[in-house]
Amino acid sequence: MESHNPVPDITVDTNYGVCAAAGFRAAGVEAGFKASGGKDLALVVNDGPEFTAAAVLTSNRVAAAPVHWSREVIRQGTCRAVILNSGGANACTGAQGFQNTHETAENVAERLGVGAGDVVVCSTGLIGEQLPMDVMKAGIPAVTDALAAGPEAGKSAAEAIMTTDSVSKQACAARDGWTVGGIAKGAGMLAPGLATMLVVITTDAKLPADALDRALREACRVTFNRTDSDGCMSTNDTVALMASGASGNTADELEFTRALTAVCHSLAQQLITDAEGASHDIAITTVGAATETEAEDVSRTVSRSNLLKAAVFGNDPNWGRVLSAVGTTAAQFDPDQIDVTINGVMVCRNGAIGDSRDNVDMAAARAVDIVIDLKAGHHQATVWSNDLTHDYVEENSAYSS
Amino acid sequence: MESHNPVPDITVDTNYGVCAAAGFRAAGVEAGFKASGGKDLALVVNDGPEFTAAAVLTSNRVAAAPVHWSREVIRQGTCRAVILNSGGANACTGAQGFQNTHETAENVAERLGVGAGDVVVCSTGLIGEQLPMDVMKAGIPAVTDALAAGPEAGKSAAEAIMTTDSVSKQACAARDGWTVGGIAKGAGMLAPGLATMLVVITTDAKLPADALDRALREACRVTFNRTDSDGCMSTNDTVALMASGASGNTADELEFTRALTAVCHSLAQQLITDAEGASHDIAITTVGAATETEAEDVSRTVSRSNLLKAAVFGNDPNWGRVLSAVGTTAAQFDPDQIDVTINGVMVCRNGAIGDSRDNVDMAAARAVDIVIDLKAGHHQATVWSNDLTHDYVEENSAYSS
Repeated sequence: MESHNPVPDITVDTNYGVCAAAGFRAAGVEAGFKASGGKDLALVVNDGPEFTAAAVLTSNRVAAAPVHWSREVIRQGTCRAVILNSGGANACTGAQGFQNTHETAENVAERLGVGAGDVVVCSTGLIGEQLPMDVMKAGIPAVTDALAAGPEAGKSAAEAIMTTDSVSKQACAARDGWTVGGIAKGAGMLAPGLATMLVVITTDAKLPADALDRALREACRVTFNRTDSDGCMSTNDTVALMASGASGNTADELEFTRALTAVCHSLAQQLITDAEGASHDIAITTVGAATETEAEDVSRTVSRSNLLKAAVFGNDPNWGRVLSAVGTTAAQFDPDQIDVTINGVMVCRNGAIGDSRDNVDMAAARAVDIVIDLKAGHHQATVWSNDLTHDYVEENSAYSS
Repeated sequence: MESHNPVPDITVDTNYGVCAAAGFRAAGVEAGFKASGGKDLALVVNDGPEFTAAAVLTSNRVAAAPVHWSREVIRQGTCRAVILNSGGANACTGAQGFQNTHETAENVAERLGVGAGDVVVCSTGLIGEQLPMDVMKAGIPAVTDALAAGPEAGKSAAEAIMTTDSVSKQACAARDGWTVGGIAKGAGMLAPGLATMLVVITTDAKLPADALDRALREACRVTFNRTDSDGCMSTNDTVALMASGASGNTADELEFTRALTAVCHSLAQQLITDAEGASHDIAITTVGAATETEAEDVSRTVSRSNLLKAAVFGNDPNWGRVLSAVGTTAAQFDPDQIDVTINGVMVCRNGAIGDSRDNVDMAAARAVDIVIDLKAGHHQATVWSNDLTHDYVEENSAYSS
C-alpha cells in the first residue's frame, strides 16, 4: 500500500517483538479470563540496568481503571514491568475496578521484588464487568514463573494479548548498537471489545525519559493515531515503551524516533491487515493541504464515512461519497478544484466527473488507495482504514451476550 | 418513542401533505430518470396570492448544482414553484451540471409563466453523473400538465420523490384559520443515494419572509437536524417552505413555528421509521447537560458509534459502548457521575455497573430508548438514529454499479 506519511526507510522484522532488545523477559499463559480458552495473561519485564519508560494512553475521558493506574506509574518516567490481560477491560467498574488494578500491580510487584508503582497494567475485553480476581491472583505466579528471554517468550506474550486477532503481531528494528521491538493487539473492526489497542515496545538503547516520551508521541502521531478502523475510541488504549539500556549504547534521539516509527508503523499495518470483518485495507491520502492537520482531518473524515466504506466492500469506486465527506470538513479548499484518484484512476477532476469509474479495479487486491488533492498547499497525511462489511456487523452485534 | 426534544403537542395528520394548505397545486409523473421505473419527477406550485418562501439547504461545502441554484432563488424570500427529480443528484457535475439546473428552472418557468429565478430545483440520486436533459425536457410538460389541487395530487408528488423509501411521507397540521403541510423523502440508511433528504412544506398562512425563515430554521434545528442515521451529510439536502397566504389569515410567528415544528417532527420520524436496513429506531437523549449544544453533541456522538449501532442490531444492551462514545466529547461531565438507562433499566450508575443488563428487553420492540444523564446541568436534547445492520451494508455496497 502506497503511503504518504513519513514512514522511515528502515527494515522491520516481524518475527521478533519485545524480547528482541537485550534486558527483557516475557511470558504469556492461560489464566482463565477468556471463556473461549487460550492464553490471556502476558507479562513483559525490564531487567535493566536502566528502567526508563514512556507511555501514550487513551484520550477517552471515560478511561479504564488500568489506564488511570498506568498514567500515574508512567508519570515518573520509569517502569519495570507491564502486565496485560485479555478477557475483561476493567472499564466503568468504579472504585472496585481501580482496587482490582492496584491489587494486580501489587501481586506482580511482589513476585518480581519491585514496587507496585513500577508496574503498568493493561486490560482488554468487555466494558462494565469486574475482573475475576481469583483468576488474576492464580495467574500472576504462573506468568512470572514462565518468564524467559528470547523469541519464544516474546511470541508467547504477543499471543496472550490477542482477542479476536487471527495472528499475533510483532515487529522489531535493529540499528547500530541497539534494537527496538514491540507487540500489539486489536484495532477497530478487529476487536469487538471496543477496538482496544494494546502495544508494548522495548529497547535496549540508552535514552533519557524525556527523549523517550518525545519519540513515542511522535511515532504514535503518524502511525497508530492515523489508523482509524471504525472511528470508535477505546477506554483502554495503551502504548507502553520501556528502555533497558542493556546495549550500553546511547541512541541518537532522531535516529531512535525513526526506528521506533518504523516499528509502530509495522504494528499498525499488521493491525489493519488482520482487522476482522474487513475485506479491504484502505489508505486514504490527502495531499495539497494547507496544513498537515487539515490533511489528516480530511483523510480521517473520509475514513469514517460508512457510505464510502460500504461501497468499498462492494468494490464500488463511488467517489461522490469521498467528496461529500470532504465537504463536511473545515479544511481549506475550493470544491471546484478537488481531484480524487482511486487505485490510480483520477475519477474526479476539479470537483467534477473525471476518468470513467469503470476503469477502477477494486476486486483484484485487498489494498485500496484513495488520494485526495485539495490543491490548497503542500501538506499531506495518510489515514489507514477498512471497509464496512457484513462480518463487521456480525462480529459487533452480539459481543457481550 | 419518548422524546426529550421540545416537540409541540399539536395533532399531525400524515394522510395529507403539500396540497393541504390552500393555494397550492402539485403533481408527480414518471419521466424516466430511474432505471427501475416509477414516478421520478415532482412539482409543487404556489398559486398565491402571496409567494413568500424560505429554505434550509445542505451545509456540505461540496454542494450539488441545484443547491447552488436554489440558494440564489431563495435569497429574495420568494419562490413560486419547486421542481424535484429522483434518479440523479446532479452533484459534482461542474459547469455543465449547473447549466442543466438552470435549464430545468427555465423550462418549468416557461410552462408556468413565471421567471426562472422563482423556481427552486432539487435532485436526488447518484453523485457524479450528468442528468439526462432529454428526459427532463420531456418530463416537464408532462408534470405541469398533471398539476392539480387536492390530496391525490399532493400524494403523487410525495411518491415521485421516493428513492428506496418503502412508503411516501406526508404530514400536515391545521390551526385556527390556516394550515401547514409537507412531503419528504430519504434520510440516512434509507437512501443509498447519499442519504439525501428532500422536503417541501407549504402553508396558506400569511407571514413575512423573515418570520418564515426564522420559523423554518428553528423547526429544522430540533427535528431534521437531530435525525442522524449514519452521520453522512448529503450534497443535496433541501427543506423548502412556501407560503401562499391563500387562507387570508396572518399566523402568529410563535404558533406557526410550533405547528411547523410538529410537521417537521412527524416527517423526520417517518424518515427514521422507514430507514432501509434498520431494524431498530434509537432515540438517544442526553439530559443533565450544561448546555443544549453539549446535550446534542453527546447524543449525536453516541448515535454515530458503529459499535453501539451494531450492538443494538444484536439486541445487546452494551452500555460500555455508550460511555466510550460519551468519553470522546468535550461536554462537561464527571465520568464517575454518568448514568445510562436503556429501555428504562439503569444499566450504568455513576459511571460504573448499575442494574443487570439482563433486565433490558430490546427484542420486543423496534424502538430503543437510551437516556444519558451527565449530571452537569439542566439542558437536554434527543437525537434519533437507527441500528447498523447487514441490510445497511448490502444496500450501500453496490449502489452506483
